[in-house]
Amino acid sequence: MKTTLEIEVEAANLEFYKTFDSGSLEDMERIWLHEDWVRCVHPGWDVLRGWRDIRESWGRIFGGDQKMKVSTDDVSVCRMGELALVTCLENIIVFEGADFDSMQAVATNVFVLREGKWLMAHHHASAIPLIIPDSSSDNIQ
Amino acid sequence: MKTTLEIEVEAANLEFYKTFDSGSLEDMERIWLHEDWVRCVHPGWDVLRGWRDIRESWGRIFGGDQKMKVSTDDVSVCRMGELALVTCLENIIVFEGADFDSMQAVATNVFVLREGKWLMAHHHASAIPLIIPDSSSDNIQ
Repeated sequence: MKTTLEIEVEAANLEFYKTFDSGSLEDMERIWLHEDWVRCVHPGWDVLRGWRDIRESWGRIFGGDQKMKVSTDDVSVCRMGELALVTCLENIIVFEGADFDSMQAVATNVFVLREGKWLMAHHHASAIPLIIPDSSSDNIQ
Repeated sequence: MKTTLEIEVEAANLEFYKTFDSGSLEDMERIWLHEDWVRCVHPGWDVLRGWRDIRESWGRIFGGDQKMKVSTDDVSVCRMGELALVTCLENIIVFEGADFDSMQAVATNVFVLREGKWLMAHHHASAIPLIIPDSSSDNIQ
């Protein structure tokens, strides 16, 4: 049975992904915490530290030729006081002109409760290769 | 100025990486929280959910032919009550027989304070490609 706060966190997580579709930097600004300690890892990138660099990265992403649609699966929420830890699978379609490509990523998202609103404080997304490693393989970290 | 608790979290993070070198499943068991809500993402993998599956994955990693040494850079700690969020760069050397390979990954690690000890509750690591994307490119998520 989900608590009201967990449902609120799921809604905040959904809002983050809807912002991919909107491509709105204003929306991205509204849903993130604007503090120095926030962190963001786009797939294959090093860590971006602090809201200023994170905002710039979203500006570049939304200002490019590619548009994205993202849906989520397997969303799980763990709330501890005024902080919530979310993991989910991201199904991403990237459109560029008439072409499109699809990929899957896994995300760790952290939200903090500020003045009644869950704001994103940490986003770490990493691509899942189309060929999933054999579970019997030891070729992993 | 770091607080005592932040120094304790850094020590817990360091202990996690030392366990890569030791290859000891017992050590890994000792430093993780054994609960259903814990999560682990190895580079390129989907999310592992719950301590049971996470423990199994470490068993496979440590039981394989590859041995690892990991050092960290750019460790940052943000503590909120009895939870701490760590990001760091992982410098990984993978040995297999006489061969070795190196890679870099970025990690989000979450620790929770239980009975005076910081235990790992979440580990998400993702490889950074050797060719870092051009910062002017829009070819990112």
